[in-house]
Amino acid sequence: MKISVVSNILEANDRIAAENKALFDERGIYAVNIMSSPGAGKTSLVEKTVEALGDRFRIAVIEGDIQDTCDAERVARLGIPVVQINTGGACHIDGNMVRGALSSLDLDGVRLLIVENVGNLVCPAEFKLGEHAKVMLLSTPEGADKPAKYPLMFQESSVLLINKTDLLPYVDFDMAKARRDALAINRNLRIFEISCKNAEGLEGWYGWLSGEIESTRKR
Amino acid sequence: MKISVVSNILEANDRIAAENKALFDERGIYAVNIMSSPGAGKTSLVEKTVEALGDRFRIAVIEGDIQDTCDAERVARLGIPVVQINTGGACHIDGNMVRGALSSLDLDGVRLLIVENVGNLVCPAEFKLGEHAKVMLLSTPEGADKPAKYPLMFQESSVLLINKTDLLPYVDFDMAKARRDALAINRNLRIFEISCKNAEGLEGWYGWLSGEIESTRKR
Repeated sequence: MKISVVSNILEANDRIAAENKALFDERGIYAVNIMSSPGAGKTSLVEKTVEALGDRFRIAVIEGDIQDTCDAERVARLGIPVVQINTGGACHIDGNMVRGALSSLDLDGVRLLIVENVGNLVCPAEFKLGEHAKVMLLSTPEGADKPAKYPLMFQESSVLLINKTDLLPYVDFDMAKARRDALAINRNLRIFEISCKNAEGLEGWYGWLSGEIESTRKR
Repeated sequence: MKISVVSNILEANDRIAAENKALFDERGIYAVNIMSSPGAGKTSLVEKTVEALGDRFRIAVIEGDIQDTCDAERVARLGIPVVQINTGGACHIDGNMVRGALSSLDLDGVRLLIVENVGNLVCPAEFKLGEHAKVMLLSTPEGADKPAKYPLMFQESSVLLINKTDLLPYVDFDMAKARRDALAINRNLRIFEISCKNAEGLEGWYGWLSGEIESTRKR
């Protein structure tokens, strides 16, 4: 009984996510769903990405949080359209929440939509939003055992950003093991080692994302 | 419809959790449920606690992970009874999983049962296990905005351990804000600043926990 209810919820979500994606494709918008543990640096990544690519592409952002609007306020300071989803307790955002948020966003000319999910390394990986790619952050203080312990998110993601490399001298993080275990789960995963704090290593991420946005225009 | 199903699940869980707690009380076992984001230091805290209090109290541990047994292996090296729960995808452990694990544990003479939950700052806070206290870790690299963004866990917990104080010189963590916002949600929260890595600040935690265990014996 419980399983069938969950399965119905996921099916209904898939349908709404497909509608969101059709809307994005029609408008030439590339959508990414950014996921990680709490405090791994999602909002800092959004800020850096908007600063780096905002002159080239019009960008809009959807911020997902259980409550609170502090992330949306951070992003709004960059002068781009941003909407806050408050899930009211739910541990992830879903297709329907994104659909609701889209109605409050001016999508005119937008080429990149960034959706920042609730900080959670488990549940968000199960819910499609209509995104073209899932992107996850793993921060070095979390440890290199995370791929083995939370495999679904590594499996579902197209890109793994290993953030907070500036802390490598002070934490026990086995970079080789993290990369090896992540690739064992998903051999197509693109991995970039970055520090949002020091703005290091981000060129690869900007290059990959720009390429994806450009290829969306050509469809 | 969705809400009523969820509510039934939580009611059924509460009933099983109450049965677990009755078993603990009958045997004079004090049970704690340890929760945090992934990689905040739960297993390190378990190790330190067993090393510090294991001579004084017989301790057993239940390790909760989505998959993988590496945490249980770490704890088993300390020579105490440990059982691994693998949730098979689920983002938290529940009362029924704990009940199942208890049947594999030798509880003879056990005075402290430590349950390490799945790394997740959201969902575990909703599910009672039969514990006497919920204890949460917040690690400094996660940032001081976590109480405002994930209030339920701060509300439900009796103790907040702010871990990885050794990283304070290298991260932007506003300790005063974290303490203030956590206490605004739950004014009864006991807060200890600790570093499991350097074994600093743990005396307060050991003292509090010992007192709780001792008071359980007296019932």
